[in-house]
Amino acid sequence: MSKLQQTRRTQAERTRASKEKIIQAASEFFAQQGYRGAKMADIAKAANLTEPGLLHHFASKTHLLMAVLAERDRVDRERFGPSLLGEMGNPLSSLQKLVEYNETVPGLVQLFTILVAESIQEQHPAHNFFMQRYQNGREQDIEVLRQGQAQGEIRSDIPAEDLTIMLYAMMDGLQIQWLFEPEKIDMARIFGQFVRLLRGE
Amino acid sequence: MSKLQQTRRTQAERTRASKEKIIQAASEFFAQQGYRGAKMADIAKAANLTEPGLLHHFASKTHLLMAVLAERDRVDRERFGPSLLGEMGNPLSSLQKLVEYNETVPGLVQLFTILVAESIQEQHPAHNFFMQRYQNGREQDIEVLRQGQAQGEIRSDIPAEDLTIMLYAMMDGLQIQWLFEPEKIDMARIFGQFVRLLRGE
Repeated sequence: MSKLQQTRRTQAERTRASKEKIIQAASEFFAQQGYRGAKMADIAKAANLTEPGLLHHFASKTHLLMAVLAERDRVDRERFGPSLLGEMGNPLSSLQKLVEYNETVPGLVQLFTILVAESIQEQHPAHNFFMQRYQNGREQDIEVLRQGQAQGEIRSDIPAEDLTIMLYAMMDGLQIQWLFEPEKIDMARIFGQFVRLLRGE
Repeated sequence: MSKLQQTRRTQAERTRASKEKIIQAASEFFAQQGYRGAKMADIAKAANLTEPGLLHHFASKTHLLMAVLAERDRVDRERFGPSLLGEMGNPLSSLQKLVEYNETVPGLVQLFTILVAESIQEQHPAHNFFMQRYQNGREQDIEVLRQGQAQGEIRSDIPAEDLTIMLYAMMDGLQIQWLFEPEKIDMARIFGQFVRLLRGE
């Protein structure tokens, strides 16, 4: 390997490390203060950078937000695969596992809760991202739910479309009360009760 | 009535009208941009006031936020009474009516959705307001749910505490998807499906 190649690789590694550090810092500030409340200067400082140094990696707060969301999606896909509904014979088990996992990452749950609420406004840079996230999620899950209904594993007197909406609603809503009182609200256990309802138990 | 009394009443009326106008404007800006994003200068302008004029009525943005929330609670109590669960023999009917009412006031629903999410952070001025709002709501409803369970109107294999948490979660979560796609997500109908599940139908 030439000296030039070595230097290049080191630069690329440094850039990647810097970006990871920035995304981590941005996630924390967005989770605490929302996208609108978070300041680029604070994020830069937390990542040991000047603000121009930060802007060298991400040209704007919007670019940084999209990077944070893309990184979260990548990690979640690796962990849970494309559909959240789980294997046949045990429908909704993967969603249950996701809720249990979420209890271990309150910062991330808070990040998504605040960003989703902010981005209801059409002008918010993450508006389309979250709208499509719900649409894609529901679309992917609907087939699995229909199969579960056909096999008598899930109540079939409620349309599968409605079930997907209810599942996401219950997850989102439980997260809010759990974030306020994590010691008191047993999110995973209560989601489990809801799943039992949907199974017709 | 003396001239002085007339002048006083007119001043009091003007003050009340100004405050109402400010609260209305603040509600709209908070709903769009959250408490953190909203600017006092914009709220003042929308209420036809200078910023010092606004500060004469509300000493800070926090005072204004608390006034907005108090006003919402007052209106809701007038409309729905202390418990949201409705009369005996038809449990959960009032919650169903509340969801139907909410479909007619998307601006208010958006206001609460963004403020609740922001106020998860402990330093947020509405943090205690919303935490207590959930606590009081669940506490008030739990007795009605227990009575419904005792009379066989509500499934009794799920603890009433869990049912109250699930009811608020489903309402909050449905609101999010509905705010993104009001034409597509039939919030009241889907909440009705959930109520049927809880009734054991």
